Amino acid sequence: MMQPLRNLALEAATVGTTASVLGWDQETRMPERSAAWRGRQLAWLSGRTHELRTSAAWSEAIDEALQGELTPRERATVVEMKRRLERARRIPTELVEREAELTSQSKHAWAGAREDNDFPRFAPMLEQLLELAREKAERWGYDDEPYDALLETYERGASTVAIASLFDKLGPSLREIASAAVERSASRPFTLPPGPYPVAAQQAFNREVAEAFGFDFSAGRIDATTHPFCTTLGPADVRLTTRYDQADFTSSLFAVMHEAGHGLYEQGLNEDDFGTPAGEAASLGIHESQSRLWENHVGRSRTFWQAWLPRARAHFPCLGDVDLDTFMRHVLRSDFSLIRVEADEATYDLHILLRFDLERRLLRGELSVSEVPEAWNAAVQAAFDITPPDDRRGCLQDIHWAMGGFGYFPTYTLGNLNASQLFAAACREDSVRLAVEEASYRPLLEWLKTHVHEAGATLSPPRIIRDATGTEPDAEAHLQHLRERYLG
Amino acid sequence: MMQPLRNLALEAATVGTTASVLGWDQETRMPERSAAWRGRQLAWLSGRTHELRTSAAWSEAIDEALQGELTPRERATVVEMKRRLERARRIPTELVEREAELTSQSKHAWAGAREDNDFPRFAPMLEQLLELAREKAERWGYDDEPYDALLETYERGASTVAIASLFDKLGPSLREIASAAVERSASRPFTLPPGPYPVAAQQAFNREVAEAFGFDFSAGRIDATTHPFCTTLGPADVRLTTRYDQADFTSSLFAVMHEAGHGLYEQGLNEDDFGTPAGEAASLGIHESQSRLWENHVGRSRTFWQAWLPRARAHFPCLGDVDLDTFMRHVLRSDFSLIRVEADEATYDLHILLRFDLERRLLRGELSVSEVPEAWNAAVQAAFDITPPDDRRGCLQDIHWAMGGFGYFPTYTLGNLNASQLFAAACREDSVRLAVEEASYRPLLEWLKTHVHEAGATLSPPRIIRDATGTEPDAEAHLQHLRERYLG
Repeated sequence: MMQPLRNLALEAATVGTTASVLGWDQETRMPERSAAWRGRQLAWLSGRTHELRTSAAWSEAIDEALQGELTPRERATVVEMKRRLERARRIPTELVEREAELTSQSKHAWAGAREDNDFPRFAPMLEQLLELAREKAERWGYDDEPYDALLETYERGASTVAIASLFDKLGPSLREIASAAVERSASRPFTLPPGPYPVAAQQAFNREVAEAFGFDFSAGRIDATTHPFCTTLGPADVRLTTRYDQADFTSSLFAVMHEAGHGLYEQGLNEDDFGTPAGEAASLGIHESQSRLWENHVGRSRTFWQAWLPRARAHFPCLGDVDLDTFMRHVLRSDFSLIRVEADEATYDLHILLRFDLERRLLRGELSVSEVPEAWNAAVQAAFDITPPDDRRGCLQDIHWAMGGFGYFPTYTLGNLNASQLFAAACREDSVRLAVEEASYRPLLEWLKTHVHEAGATLSPPRIIRDATGTEPDAEAHLQHLRERYLG
Repeated sequence: MMQPLRNLALEAATVGTTASVLGWDQETRMPERSAAWRGRQLAWLSGRTHELRTSAAWSEAIDEALQGELTPRERATVVEMKRRLERARRIPTELVEREAELTSQSKHAWAGAREDNDFPRFAPMLEQLLELAREKAERWGYDDEPYDALLETYERGASTVAIASLFDKLGPSLREIASAAVERSASRPFTLPPGPYPVAAQQAFNREVAEAFGFDFSAGRIDATTHPFCTTLGPADVRLTTRYDQADFTSSLFAVMHEAGHGLYEQGLNEDDFGTPAGEAASLGIHESQSRLWENHVGRSRTFWQAWLPRARAHFPCLGDVDLDTFMRHVLRSDFSLIRVEADEATYDLHILLRFDLERRLLRGELSVSEVPEAWNAAVQAAFDITPPDDRRGCLQDIHWAMGGFGYFPTYTLGNLNASQLFAAACREDSVRLAVEEASYRPLLEWLKTHVHEAGATLSPPRIIRDATGTEPDAEAHLQHLRERYLG
């Protein structure tokens, strides 16, 4: 790739990762009274980033690069940069700043409304957020419906109709599996010894596991937050967070496994391509495949705990002499939860299906904001046979809409489907499977690097899945995985 | 003040505090492999800050403001902004970026040279740093010698000749006091019970003390670093750091008192003036007066420990039943240390006097870089009657020159002198003195806010001292304080 374009991309990444440092600090360290000033800092940075990424210099450097000699990987990188430039240029800086201000306010309003269980207070803000989302969709353009344009932000090339059709087929099987898993879990309850499991011991154990997965702590770290996340502050700076429950060490552990999955992807991207699509994740659906793979396919497996239960006992004497089979009932317990972020593997996707349906109807104008609580509760009742007692545990639980993130939710389930396809494909290689069975993860990580990480965003998400697994993206592997694990 | 100027100042402060967030993270959290990228982020931010602060828009807004109606405080603010603008405009952006790159490299080179006790390896870098300092001094201009121009960066209006004359007078008295203090301390040794003093208990105790001084934790926090510091990340975000020694809880405590003194100043500045000279510290010599006042005048006093020793015992049972008089021998112990940052109150300023003399001679060309180790060791021998066994504990110990900070050192002693004058003046008010004697600090903090903090940088440092104490800045109060405490 030509040097001018590379330099521009590095400058934009410099500014973008500066915002990430501020965002990380905001979630983990910032004193409460500093929120307004931090909003100002982040707004300034997003303005500068948008200016850089839509500049004439950027556009000229792209066109110049496309006229030169390029390797296929370089060409794919520049073509993707051009797609992003054209998309970004449809949004004026004024709108970017307006959105930054609105979402800064609405996140605050949402947090207050959730705490007070007061949906009507949040409703006018949600109207504005929807209006803004529609405005962006119109500016970006779409084939079938506005939701397509929003989805594109998170999952390049995905279509609303295709996801709806996939989810429609998935729904009945998921409900069947979930019901059986919940029933089986209830029939053989197991209560973890009550602890306390000291935070320091959890930290030590989590770190050992993350290192065993291959996470590089010389280029990353783990901190504590209310909601776990993973963020990249530079080519050698990937931060994970988790939250600690002194009554259950697996709570922080599975969060670390999940975020380490994201972090391993970020660390597996080509460092020399940092700041360009070749050094960036392909999509949220691919990103989530990595977190789910390490959390669920590796971390909730019997072979993992065969090796790690004895080490857990060494860290947590209060765990006592619980045997592997009994402990696995804790790892694989299933229940219909009202809260998505607390949902288990067998029931999780049902939460996503209902959110996708609701936000799509909102964007199509088939559902009004005031009807959301009732529609939400009806959908939960239909899926789980329970009704949320309040909106806090219903339609106010997630931050996504308050951030303007319409179109984000379906990528969670795409991630689950991708994870199952990728893990099955990786395990078809003997060297990977045999190592995994012995709780050795280097060959698996190498496989993922080769088949997923190294492409960055130079390939489309479906192309990555197809090349890595030999099949089109679909739900079969995921349903098979869930059936084997929860009905087998 | 006129709104356009205020908006420009806020934008520059937004970018400047963004760099502070990155600097704080670098010192406290950043994974080791991320140093190069962080350097790139900080260089970009310093380039943008310099551009903003030297822009035509800034210059026009200042001139426009000066033609309007202004209160005296507003006029002083704008005049100071004009002074800074003119000073900044003498340095081209190219030099700012060159300096950012050089100091980024030299800090790294210095750290390695110090670790390996290898001054010759650092020497070429020191030559370049001196050359750059001379270049900046020439561009800024000066009356008597280049050192004046560098000093101005840290202590507006100070003159090298005046400081040299002050330090010359101070030297003999300081040496006399220090020798007596060291002798007395040696004659009645006391060893603190060995602990361990757990870090969690130290954190709780330190926080109680900082809160008692008046530090607002809703707009600040304390973290751990190798070298304690205080930094401001926004109008309501002041971060302190300390380091923990499990064998001596007073080590982290006195560092917290010191940094909280800086932090109380930052929190005491007018929040509405943030980003303008009216909301910024007057100078380093005034800043250091606040840290020394709380650390030494308050924190090392018998009245403080009368109230707080029982609370220390509650936090640290291993402290045993040591009585107040015995414990005060630990608080006021004195020794000729080779290391400035470990030096006690009675010997500290002697470290500064020798550094000022050396760096002044370096700038005048009277001392060459290769002669530094020998000159350093001779000065230490003359002052303390000991000779550093190596350069690591000699001329390589401080980071200041590696940061290009020639002219910084004397502000430490100016701070000590200011602290003694200010504390004596504050205690001439009965309400302050009586409260301090009962370990109640709100009236003292209010006095400092009124007499020091509120002026920001709208008054010169000597004017602040004169207005607050009724006398010109001088060394009398400090010598008297040291004599009473260490010879009394």
